[in-house]
Amino acid sequence: MSKFYILSAVFLNSVSFAQSPSQDSTSLRKIFDFYLTESHCYKNLEYLTTQIGGRISGSTQAAQAVTWAKKAMYEAGADTVYLQPCMVPHWVRGVKETCTTVNIKTKQKTTYTICALGGSVATPIPGLIAEVIEVNSFDELDKLGEAGVKGKIVFYNVFFDHQHLSTGTCYGETVKYRWAGPSKAAKYGAVATIVRSMSSINNDFPHTGAMGYDTTVCKTKIPCCAMSYVAADKLLKELKENPKLKVSLKMNCATLKDEPSFNVVGEIKGTQKPNEIILAGGHLDSWDLGQGAHDDGAGVVQSIEVLAMYKKQGIKPRHTIRAVAFMNEENGGAGGRAYLEDTKKNKLKHIAALESDAGGFSPRGIGADTTLGLYKKLVSFKELLNPYFLQYIERGGGGADISPLKQLGVPLIGFEPDGQKYFDYHHTADDTFDKINKRELELSAGVIGSIIYLTDMHN
Amino acid sequence: MSKFYILSAVFLNSVSFAQSPSQDSTSLRKIFDFYLTESHCYKNLEYLTTQIGGRISGSTQAAQAVTWAKKAMYEAGADTVYLQPCMVPHWVRGVKETCTTVNIKTKQKTTYTICALGGSVATPIPGLIAEVIEVNSFDELDKLGEAGVKGKIVFYNVFFDHQHLSTGTCYGETVKYRWAGPSKAAKYGAVATIVRSMSSINNDFPHTGAMGYDTTVCKTKIPCCAMSYVAADKLLKELKENPKLKVSLKMNCATLKDEPSFNVVGEIKGTQKPNEIILAGGHLDSWDLGQGAHDDGAGVVQSIEVLAMYKKQGIKPRHTIRAVAFMNEENGGAGGRAYLEDTKKNKLKHIAALESDAGGFSPRGIGADTTLGLYKKLVSFKELLNPYFLQYIERGGGGADISPLKQLGVPLIGFEPDGQKYFDYHHTADDTFDKINKRELELSAGVIGSIIYLTDMHN
Repeated sequence: MSKFYILSAVFLNSVSFAQSPSQDSTSLRKIFDFYLTESHCYKNLEYLTTQIGGRISGSTQAAQAVTWAKKAMYEAGADTVYLQPCMVPHWVRGVKETCTTVNIKTKQKTTYTICALGGSVATPIPGLIAEVIEVNSFDELDKLGEAGVKGKIVFYNVFFDHQHLSTGTCYGETVKYRWAGPSKAAKYGAVATIVRSMSSINNDFPHTGAMGYDTTVCKTKIPCCAMSYVAADKLLKELKENPKLKVSLKMNCATLKDEPSFNVVGEIKGTQKPNEIILAGGHLDSWDLGQGAHDDGAGVVQSIEVLAMYKKQGIKPRHTIRAVAFMNEENGGAGGRAYLEDTKKNKLKHIAALESDAGGFSPRGIGADTTLGLYKKLVSFKELLNPYFLQYIERGGGGADISPLKQLGVPLIGFEPDGQKYFDYHHTADDTFDKINKRELELSAGVIGSIIYLTDMHN
Repeated sequence: MSKFYILSAVFLNSVSFAQSPSQDSTSLRKIFDFYLTESHCYKNLEYLTTQIGGRISGSTQAAQAVTWAKKAMYEAGADTVYLQPCMVPHWVRGVKETCTTVNIKTKQKTTYTICALGGSVATPIPGLIAEVIEVNSFDELDKLGEAGVKGKIVFYNVFFDHQHLSTGTCYGETVKYRWAGPSKAAKYGAVATIVRSMSSINNDFPHTGAMGYDTTVCKTKIPCCAMSYVAADKLLKELKENPKLKVSLKMNCATLKDEPSFNVVGEIKGTQKPNEIILAGGHLDSWDLGQGAHDDGAGVVQSIEVLAMYKKQGIKPRHTIRAVAFMNEENGGAGGRAYLEDTKKNKLKHIAALESDAGGFSPRGIGADTTLGLYKKLVSFKELLNPYFLQYIERGGGGADISPLKQLGVPLIGFEPDGQKYFDYHHTADDTFDKINKRELELSAGVIGSIIYLTDMHN
């Protein structure tokens, strides 16, 4: 093989399709012009959130969202839209939960705003009444043991540690009480658990979210709920006045039989490497309480808009571009697993997979998995994206739906918008469309589109 | 002079007081711990906005705000608080403005949400009725001339150009129709002007703001108002159906006699260079419609908190640190001028002056005036502040209140939070405390405090 041939081959593989930084810069400006003036992100999100609304897995709304996403992807310019089947859990909240106390002196009734955690069993139909024991950690629970806990309602009263710069870190530290708290308390004979909402702010919205019964810890499944920040403060105050305070809980949630559902996968076939996929995704399901605007309608419409970015600007991608609206991120991850299985079965190759699931706020950064050297390549785009408010590109990151692909060596990218307000709305009735700012949503969509575009151009 | 002496002198001047980057980094982490867990920014802002409220220059509320700011500065830890007198304009809105049309066919009355611009004269008491002529630029107005404009109401219908990444640029391009539009239209015989609100979003809040009659352009002063985005769309639609549409305007605003008012200046004396001042400021006055939360209660409480950062952490500043709550930024700038005069009179030396007047959002960047090499020094702090969401340090920047100091060669710093939502609320009834996120306010306050701290340590 001649030297010339080798050089040519290297050239063709690594440079020929690449633009210069100045061409990239011009392309990005056009991309952002599109996003800021022509994109349908905001209108799509308005429809999904206000016309369909909260869409927990297995619900009618989740099914409607699948139909809508398919249509929206075709409208955005997908060549093909696949529905990828998966079986999802079907948990229903039932009648609105109640939590009350009666003051022993004044006989006055106090109500506390709560919501059942996703996956919880119901209380007995007439409700349950028991004393409450406050704990601030699992260590404290273990110290109390059966003597201190049996027959009581355990109240996990753990606050966000606001010294953390990332609210995600605050959440990461506290969510274990939501997820694992019920079985740990049941082990000592607790009859129910209440968890202080994983919230950045003190308002009266309770934050739901998934919990899991661990039958290796305790076979008994006890009802569990989240209490709003304000209500948790009120409960603390009452407990201080009367440590024997009895709380009455009523929840009639239930887990029905699994339902068939779908990931929605829209793609534009690549012109040069059609068998290599670049993926942008978010999750289509949401909790039932709000409209699933920040979590994660935003990520879904941003992903769909990647298709529109190509189609409406007449750009032909080199690789195959996929927008994926994953199902069942919130309480099971069935969609993520189904996507992995389909990828394996069809021996699909992914160049990169990006997930947007941290709200529709202004751009801030991305976390990039280091697999296959993606991190270095992304870092080379940083200067280009800096004017568009992408402050940092850090190692690590991904997303719940794309994380199963890691076992296949797929490089993962997690998009990270400015996250200070995310846990104000997360999993609450307040996660509604009016909390979305059009420009913030579009700028972040533009950054996502640009990362996909640059990855396509430089691989 | 020996070489040794020269080196020692250089050392003493530029390094001896300086900490190492690692010491700086440790100090900043402590500063942010303070801001995120102990600061009073949010509580102070709650009081200023919800207990005092909108505080236009000359109003009772502005006077209350002066008293409050003095108290808040002492509570934050000021050694001394000065009230710097200035005479301010006293414009009053009067009874809520109205704007209506009657459909010639259906006889149906339509109302449009408007607000008088600050400084406008009133309409005649019974109101004025005239045809409306829409223009999209001053060029278009000039082309229409007297023949097209005389006796009519000129409607400046200019939208934000959303291709701009900075909403401030959108504002900068359109605010001239608010400021200079009335005199330019009056020159051709217009009887009033309506301006489409300088707004990023299409809701029904009209955005007030200052206007100025330019008597060199036209001696006649005509009433002028801003119309909400939604109402402006409605008016356009009506005009399309009936180009002879008559609009009825009623405004009874008035300019009363000037009132005495004050800047509030709180300081902590420097231990090593007491005659050199580092200033952090915001403006205490606001428009009357909302509560002046983002504009600019946020900047005021962030400035006051710089004093608390020193006092409550027991840090002794080397230079004298000043928090300044300027009066009358919105409609006159009397406070900024009074501060300059006092500075001149007392021959005060300022090392730097920082202004925060772009909302209480997450940190994004700073603009720094290049005078005296400040820009380079600030850029050297960039890596330290990057983890705290300070993305950029750019040339240029300052603030309306500190800009008079430029003539004395004072280096100016403009703090720039994430600005996508600022013009959603700016100068409207919607600029209220509930639009403030505690962590965003505190993080930006922390960046401001850190810049003051580093400037003090390294000068």
